[in-house]
Amino acid sequence: MRCEVVAIGTELLLGVIVDSNSSWIGEQLALAGIDSLYQTKVGDNFQRMEAVIRQALERSDAVICCGGLGPTQDDITRDVIAKVMGVPLVRDATIADEIRRRFEVRGRTMSLNNLRQADIPEGASAIPEMPGTAPGLVCPIGDKVIYAVPGVPSEMKEMVAGTVLPDLRRRMGASAVIRSRTLRTWGVSESGVDEMLTERMAELDRLGNPTIAFNASGIEGIKVRVTAKCDDEETAQRILVAEEKILRAILGEAVFGIDGESMELVVLNALRGRGLSIAVAESVSGGILASRLSAIDTAMATFKGAIIQPDRDPVQPPDLSPEARSLRDAKAVQRHFGADVGLAIVAADKDEGARPGTVFITIALHDAVHADMTVLPGDRKRMREYGVISALNFLRKLL
Amino acid sequence: MRCEVVAIGTELLLGVIVDSNSSWIGEQLALAGIDSLYQTKVGDNFQRMEAVIRQALERSDAVICCGGLGPTQDDITRDVIAKVMGVPLVRDATIADEIRRRFEVRGRTMSLNNLRQADIPEGASAIPEMPGTAPGLVCPIGDKVIYAVPGVPSEMKEMVAGTVLPDLRRRMGASAVIRSRTLRTWGVSESGVDEMLTERMAELDRLGNPTIAFNASGIEGIKVRVTAKCDDEETAQRILVAEEKILRAILGEAVFGIDGESMELVVLNALRGRGLSIAVAESVSGGILASRLSAIDTAMATFKGAIIQPDRDPVQPPDLSPEARSLRDAKAVQRHFGADVGLAIVAADKDEGARPGTVFITIALHDAVHADMTVLPGDRKRMREYGVISALNFLRKLL
Repeated sequence: MRCEVVAIGTELLLGVIVDSNSSWIGEQLALAGIDSLYQTKVGDNFQRMEAVIRQALERSDAVICCGGLGPTQDDITRDVIAKVMGVPLVRDATIADEIRRRFEVRGRTMSLNNLRQADIPEGASAIPEMPGTAPGLVCPIGDKVIYAVPGVPSEMKEMVAGTVLPDLRRRMGASAVIRSRTLRTWGVSESGVDEMLTERMAELDRLGNPTIAFNASGIEGIKVRVTAKCDDEETAQRILVAEEKILRAILGEAVFGIDGESMELVVLNALRGRGLSIAVAESVSGGILASRLSAIDTAMATFKGAIIQPDRDPVQPPDLSPEARSLRDAKAVQRHFGADVGLAIVAADKDEGARPGTVFITIALHDAVHADMTVLPGDRKRMREYGVISALNFLRKLL
Repeated sequence: MRCEVVAIGTELLLGVIVDSNSSWIGEQLALAGIDSLYQTKVGDNFQRMEAVIRQALERSDAVICCGGLGPTQDDITRDVIAKVMGVPLVRDATIADEIRRRFEVRGRTMSLNNLRQADIPEGASAIPEMPGTAPGLVCPIGDKVIYAVPGVPSEMKEMVAGTVLPDLRRRMGASAVIRSRTLRTWGVSESGVDEMLTERMAELDRLGNPTIAFNASGIEGIKVRVTAKCDDEETAQRILVAEEKILRAILGEAVFGIDGESMELVVLNALRGRGLSIAVAESVSGGILASRLSAIDTAMATFKGAIIQPDRDPVQPPDLSPEARSLRDAKAVQRHFGADVGLAIVAADKDEGARPGTVFITIALHDAVHADMTVLPGDRKRMREYGVISALNFLRKLL
């Protein structure tokens, strides 16, 4: 089974937007055991889009077109696919109603050209997922198929995961099962993980299944991915479970989670499991930790709140060391929000003699106090983000 | 003059690496007035690489191949280009010496396969820039040309800027200058912007220069990009300035910034310009606004601080309406941080009778109070992010 990706949009060719959609789709296809041998970017031009889609359909069994489904005049993916299918566009009343409804719900007036999005090639069907106002399409051509999804990454992902991949799998029929599991680590460098895993990877090279790959993903840590290719689901899962156990024994407490588990999710779960609440004080990270915790704990049942403010007067010389300021702030938010845990991140300033990027973390847990210090990459953006993850990792290990 | 980009590497198709190289090259080509109508990703496979490069060379005047120049067995770009040129590979003694020297300088032993990098198609020449150990190539074919550059972004950029672009410009003869400017808008839908600009776009279609394109960029708003193609820099800038004036007259206060100016930057600049400080109260957005403001105002000179906490007791029925809670919170942070402006974002809860996604914004500016209400997309993630931008936009319009 082969499936190509065609990313549509002049802004992609001009470098205004980096085409990360094709990469994401390529990864999903690979995990599903589908080959993606070519991926093409083309501008919003009828003739060139038509040529690219025709060629992709010739070389492969399926084509995923990404972008060009908006309501404006340069959004012509629907029209081009209809031409390739050799059918007219017809207005789909159900989609039109749905688009009208979306605008009503938000209390906004719909301009008439939005209804262009309800014009679909005869014989095509709409993808049920529709997080935005652009409907995605499934367009069968003989025994092949063209899918059209929007260029907005969140909408694209929902449609590909919800409809495109299941449909491709169905078309592929009984096939090999490829399953993977990612162990997420923090606190060990990429080459450190490489060294720890050298022996096990050599063993797996001999065995052939599963395989291991790892990549550094910035503030998401080093990801170690195990992939098993088997005839059935059960065997694949058994292999993954066994390999996870082996890798956890090698990597130890560097492993903080699995697959989509972020550091903040893991920490919030650990707090919930112990019936503990948390409040945080941020200065250098300026709200990043709070926004991450509140994204998951939307009811703010475990994460009680945060105070964001400079930890020292920017003009006066500091009356306390950065360690002492982080202790003061951790106790202050613990008290203010009546939380079990108070956590503070404080960066040493240039005039305080510490190496650039030095961050002090204090965790007040009931009456106990735990302090940590770490030196982070120098630029401020990375220091803010790494500081937040380091603080969460420190709390994770304490719990 | 047309130039295609071919990005080579199976890991690009598998989504292990996002192909940002093509985007960067596309941008450079556009700025040099060279059209790049197609960009293709292909794996490390001889037949498929050959087919893609031949097709690119047929459709365009020049092809830039990115990747596959390393010393390992799967690095076959040199071999494929030689096949397309119909010539053998010959070992270039100068390049071989240079590669040996590189290893010596770094005190590392060179394995023999590194010398494969000195095998170049007969008639090709090495690109003088060589920041790594992989030489880049200029390979003329009749009146067309194939360039080969490494996939490592820093090496690729040095070669493209230093040799490829100047060579393309020389081949093109007297060249055009392409310059663009992006107007950023908030508060009008994509189709709304489309309708407002229909007449002007039709006029420009007749004139031919400049051109306008726009795209919806989620929480970055709708971007309207003006592109001018001229013989010289001065004319291009004059056209952009004139067109910006015309578009601002049409789009009015929906335009909040130009090019890289984010909403928070524009708002912080407006506050600074008036000597005003700000403090914020966040509940539903849980720290997103604070993290954005603190990312820019790192000294926290204008952004004094934030309090993040639930705006109501999650168990008790609320004693105040959401409007009243947002007023209370705005005044509270204004007072607590001693700021000129207090801003609060409050979401109505399900049991309060408002439409889902309804957000109340209050801005306390000294003794005056301004309130706004907006209905946002239902899912929580988007509600949080759109709530923040809506609040900033409300403040921008007030200032």
